[in-house]
Amino acid sequence: MMKTTGKVYLIGAGPGDVDMLTVKAARALGEAEVLLLDELLNREVLRYASLRARLIEVGKRGGCKSTPQAFIERLMVRLACAGKIVARVKGGDPFVFGRGGEELQALRAAGIDCEIVSGITAGVGVPATLGIPLTHRDFCHGVTFVTGHLRDGSQPDWSALARSGTTLVIYMGMKRLCAITAALRAAGMAGATPAAVIQHGTTQRQRHVIATLATLVDAACDAGLGSPALLVIGRVVGLARQVEQAGLERRSA
Amino acid sequence: MMKTTGKVYLIGAGPGDVDMLTVKAARALGEAEVLLLDELLNREVLRYASLRARLIEVGKRGGCKSTPQAFIERLMVRLACAGKIVARVKGGDPFVFGRGGEELQALRAAGIDCEIVSGITAGVGVPATLGIPLTHRDFCHGVTFVTGHLRDGSQPDWSALARSGTTLVIYMGMKRLCAITAALRAAGMAGATPAAVIQHGTTQRQRHVIATLATLVDAACDAGLGSPALLVIGRVVGLARQVEQAGLERRSA
Repeated sequence: MMKTTGKVYLIGAGPGDVDMLTVKAARALGEAEVLLLDELLNREVLRYASLRARLIEVGKRGGCKSTPQAFIERLMVRLACAGKIVARVKGGDPFVFGRGGEELQALRAAGIDCEIVSGITAGVGVPATLGIPLTHRDFCHGVTFVTGHLRDGSQPDWSALARSGTTLVIYMGMKRLCAITAALRAAGMAGATPAAVIQHGTTQRQRHVIATLATLVDAACDAGLGSPALLVIGRVVGLARQVEQAGLERRSA
Repeated sequence: MMKTTGKVYLIGAGPGDVDMLTVKAARALGEAEVLLLDELLNREVLRYASLRARLIEVGKRGGCKSTPQAFIERLMVRLACAGKIVARVKGGDPFVFGRGGEELQALRAAGIDCEIVSGITAGVGVPATLGIPLTHRDFCHGVTFVTGHLRDGSQPDWSALARSGTTLVIYMGMKRLCAITAALRAAGMAGATPAAVIQHGTTQRQRHVIATLATLVDAACDAGLGSPALLVIGRVVGLARQVEQAGLERRSA
């Protein structure tokens, strides 16, 4: 296998707020000669990039709705084989619904050196803005991150998830919000279970509703919330309200 | 309620590697006048603290095994009421098995301004060091973080977790490793399911074994691994090997 001097960083830039970038991510951004940027990424992270770095948008491209994954992987391999230090920059964390696993496999297959730079995933960083702890000894045994949007059309086992006793954090679930909440109720989760939808979390555009499993669909519709958003379902969401009110008090003070 | 000028930051410092601290956490550390430090915290994070800041260890204290949670909460309230800017600094993320929810409740009840500074939780940052993606479209619907160590002696519903189709990441599970793997197998999870134990993740002392659900206990014993460690169970763990070997190749090159 030919030795290359290039390298790829798979960087998680966090959920939106640029200050949630890690020190390691900021340093890797500065080292990169070429940056491949996801569509949902907050462009403020480029303050850490070299002024000489080449920027390539891979979120949308020409007439296509999005850049095919295979194209992105070939591009990374080609750039690294040409000796470039490449930063593949994603929102959140590259290994939590970020296709980082697939990209790592492609890079390894091509013999490219690859370093994973973890980021704050939305499921951790976004509920925290409302003071929602993901776990709490009084309420739950843990937390599950799942996606409502699967490649093969299959669904998570909502019944098992409802029984798991974990806080549920659902990524990319807005388009199936009605079906997801119905499936959880059919699985025996109480309609009174506290639940939240948080859109554009950690950014200036953040908006949210706090409701119950039974009322979440109507509440999200009334508030006009859409993608990208995170759903959080579980008793811990009940801790959000007082924080929210404190936030309002601060703003009006 | 009396107005205070103090404030508490609940800061997650990440899993160990000091460079996994966020920019926001580094800034909050620098702003704090008093820092309350957890036992497992990497002390290198203090490079971001003010030289004039007062440091208080709250992990172990005198003859006690650990500082009672209620004492820590009272101390934070007292310091903030005296006008201090307080940083409560924890490993990982404060809202993922970090008691941050309880501390936030105590602070709110006392009318203290509190800001959550999210960190990279071990469940995200540690598997990434071995190239283990938490989710992968070919293998799983998501990831669950649970603890093997519960206050009331109850256990997570291992049967529901096995059925959930998510990667399982188990915190504080080493003391119950044998019972946990047995419960998952009894719940129908295949003995051949790839599984890992990673001790002291992201630090210089990191050690790990990669095995299967059936062989994990023996492998961890043979390797002499103990707490603090993270268990990772699921098909995605099968992706670790090639990365591990690549790492060895790099070291020997």
